[in-house]
Amino acid sequence: MKAVHDAESCSVAACAEIMSAKWTALLVHDLSEGPRRFSELERSCHGISPRTLAERLRALEDEGIVLRRSYAEMPPRVEYELTEKGEALLPIIDAMRAFGREWLGRDRDAAVSAAGRA
Amino acid sequence: MKAVHDAESCSVAACAEIMSAKWTALLVHDLSEGPRRFSELERSCHGISPRTLAERLRALEDEGIVLRRSYAEMPPRVEYELTEKGEALLPIIDAMRAFGREWLGRDRDAAVSAAGRA
Repeated sequence: MKAVHDAESCSVAACAEIMSAKWTALLVHDLSEGPRRFSELERSCHGISPRTLAERLRALEDEGIVLRRSYAEMPPRVEYELTEKGEALLPIIDAMRAFGREWLGRDRDAAVSAAGRA
Repeated sequence: MKAVHDAESCSVAACAEIMSAKWTALLVHDLSEGPRRFSELERSCHGISPRTLAERLRALEDEGIVLRRSYAEMPPRVEYELTEKGEALLPIIDAMRAFGREWLGRDRDAAVSAAGRA
């Protein structure tokens, strides 16, 4: 027997599904600062393979979160930007950042400064 | 060559990792209303297997998000509740719910009412 979920829980679950895809939060966070080229996103998501980045961007396009804009220049230029729906994800990222700063901050800072020294 | 992430991006990434685990958002959301027994959580996360639920709760305990409290009664009673760190996740869930209501609402409502009629 299946209980019928209320719409609220479904929204949270659906949204968790969007945010849970690896790199989504990081990509949306980066794009919140303005349109970005593929190579710029590749640099900020360090560790991502070009193939994975292309797949993630395509998935975010399909979900209506990212818009891919190509300019008919020579050489052709492609930029990615957030849609209105994508921008609506920003409060979630902000809440995540606040949580991270409060509860994950010390370990992370230590890791980052260790990486900086390495 | 690896770019050194700034602490902010790391926090978002670490937090996304916590929230991304399946059921986490739903469990934290449920526990925000007060302590719950295993069977109650099982009912609200419909579709979860007892084994998966036990694993998820144990992982949330290990992350310091959920506290497992057992009472020496007959029969023994076990309840799960949010820690302070777990409660700090609530603004993220709230932001997710607001996003879901705005951007995923119509499809979801339709799905829920279809499920209700079935």
